[in-house]
Amino acid sequence: MGSLENEKTVVGWAARDPSGVLSPYTYTLRNTGAEDVLIKVICCGICHSDLHQIKNDLCMSNYPMVPGHEVVGEVIEVGSAVTNYTVGDVVGVGVIVGCCRNCRPCNSDIEQYCNKKIWSYNDVYTDGKPTQGGFAESMIVDQKFVVKIPEGMAPEQAAPLLCAGVTVYSPLSHFGLKQSGLRGGILGLGGVGHMGVKIAKAMGHHVTVISSSDKKRAEALDHLGADRYLVSSDATQMQEAADSLDYIIDTVPAFHPLEPYLSLLKLDGKLILMGVINTPLQFVTPMVMLGRKTITGSFIGSMKETKEMLEFCKEKGLTSTIEVVKMDYVNTAIERLEKNDVRYRFVVDVAGSKLEQQ
Amino acid sequence: MGSLENEKTVVGWAARDPSGVLSPYTYTLRNTGAEDVLIKVICCGICHSDLHQIKNDLCMSNYPMVPGHEVVGEVIEVGSAVTNYTVGDVVGVGVIVGCCRNCRPCNSDIEQYCNKKIWSYNDVYTDGKPTQGGFAESMIVDQKFVVKIPEGMAPEQAAPLLCAGVTVYSPLSHFGLKQSGLRGGILGLGGVGHMGVKIAKAMGHHVTVISSSDKKRAEALDHLGADRYLVSSDATQMQEAADSLDYIIDTVPAFHPLEPYLSLLKLDGKLILMGVINTPLQFVTPMVMLGRKTITGSFIGSMKETKEMLEFCKEKGLTSTIEVVKMDYVNTAIERLEKNDVRYRFVVDVAGSKLEQQ
Repeated sequence: MGSLENEKTVVGWAARDPSGVLSPYTYTLRNTGAEDVLIKVICCGICHSDLHQIKNDLCMSNYPMVPGHEVVGEVIEVGSAVTNYTVGDVVGVGVIVGCCRNCRPCNSDIEQYCNKKIWSYNDVYTDGKPTQGGFAESMIVDQKFVVKIPEGMAPEQAAPLLCAGVTVYSPLSHFGLKQSGLRGGILGLGGVGHMGVKIAKAMGHHVTVISSSDKKRAEALDHLGADRYLVSSDATQMQEAADSLDYIIDTVPAFHPLEPYLSLLKLDGKLILMGVINTPLQFVTPMVMLGRKTITGSFIGSMKETKEMLEFCKEKGLTSTIEVVKMDYVNTAIERLEKNDVRYRFVVDVAGSKLEQQ
Repeated sequence: MGSLENEKTVVGWAARDPSGVLSPYTYTLRNTGAEDVLIKVICCGICHSDLHQIKNDLCMSNYPMVPGHEVVGEVIEVGSAVTNYTVGDVVGVGVIVGCCRNCRPCNSDIEQYCNKKIWSYNDVYTDGKPTQGGFAESMIVDQKFVVKIPEGMAPEQAAPLLCAGVTVYSPLSHFGLKQSGLRGGILGLGGVGHMGVKIAKAMGHHVTVISSSDKKRAEALDHLGADRYLVSSDATQMQEAADSLDYIIDTVPAFHPLEPYLSLLKLDGKLILMGVINTPLQFVTPMVMLGRKTITGSFIGSMKETKEMLEFCKEKGLTSTIEVVKMDYVNTAIERLEKNDVRYRFVVDVAGSKLEQQ
């Protein structure tokens, strides 16, 4: 525990109850420890899982809760043992800020699978204090969970990469699906889905967007640059596309049948689930056995993969499609996100917003 | 089409209708083509899928049907282009006897996934004639679908390897699960499951047999040499075993919940389904996402893998646990198999049986 006199008082926007309405909230940050980096937040993306957390959809929310886990900021102070960052660096923070450093996942640099990982907010840090996220003036984060934003990448562009971006990049990398020429499918065109199209295209894949209706056709083909648009309710189109995809990134966050999508996969194809769905999904075994197909899923990405992914996006000139808003619009943005009324990610301009009580 | 005078008349035991009762049946084999091998059947295993076929469970049976796809025999004639086999060789034939030789699976030596594969029986060969299986005096098979039985391996021991054996060996090989030291689970202790224990043990794995009751404990540990026995209905045992297995080979051929078994898997663990189940299986997505677990399946194995597997079994001195019967017992054996009353595979001593009409 640090001495109180050194603790920093900050203002963030917190949910106070399951209504999920955010309002200014004053709290303290721990002292900057030897391994810690103090970050002045520049901007922070709004992820769909922020909605679940602030509204207690998973029945594990603690209030007041300052959400936000796609954080980009400027380093304003570093601890005595911090070697990788200096004051003035533009850095990012994602979904987790701690892990045990001693288990098999931690020892394999896939600390996102550590059973003792600490979430950026709505969790308890090693000092016993609640963690609070990026809709705030500043954050203190252990250097292990900080990444440098590549030179020349705009902070608001980088923010969605720290969760949505690495969530797509990690399974493509892990499951051996990075080489160009592959044929990929993206199911669902929200924050993660749009990033899926962009990252897969940047890898040189032939990308099919699969959607339940024709509504997003122009958006997918013209704006995001997908190669093909497939309406899942059109049996003829689906039949023609059978046995054609090496993988599908399935971002649909609600119950849906898997068979139609398993049919689209080639031999050894992979259906990669990204949506947390507590209603059981179903499949019949011949659908996987007779094509040695895989149903799997993955959870964000490691710090190592986050660094790799940022470099990849920089090199490919990949940009997120975002709508930048001020903090006084955040509750409206959350309402709109709930209705999928955003192309494709809200990013809150935290540094440019007035955070204090009005 | 060959000239009729050269066609061979053979006697096999065929099902005539969905009762599935086998009785002597006389039919002709095609002439020995340039690539063909004529095999005098020595013995043939009875696989659970033979039951489904003779009883028309999959609604695609044609009668008369001579089943049997775990065939060991002696070469008695070879076609002019046959280079790998000579008269007197002891050889095996498995589940398929033809493929297109031109598709991606065929070009990748995984012809079992060819969409135009030809099954050993209950299918139509390229000459338009029905294929008939191994419960018969002899078979004619293209040399591509014939394997040599390693020197010193007893025919009745080899027979179950040609389907049950390679069905287990292929996914372990394909999914990178061959190295010693892995921890594997075998769910279901029938013909494929018992082979799973033996092959996994021979690979140097720590093997857990998972069963719904305590009944097979002694059998699994003492007879088959498993390292651990887990009763799936015992919540405490299951909890203690959570996060402990690299893979599970799931041979259960009927609906069962997947969550209890997904829980047993480590990070990146694989649940490999072997049972053809047309009732949908279910899982919730966090169970796969949070441990990057895989639900997959696989279908028999390639000819290349069959050869490898036979060499592996020879080298490790692996034997099947079988009950050898004569053909006049085959209908009783099928009834007993239906009740799982066999340790663990029936093999019919075809050469030692009287096949003709009594």
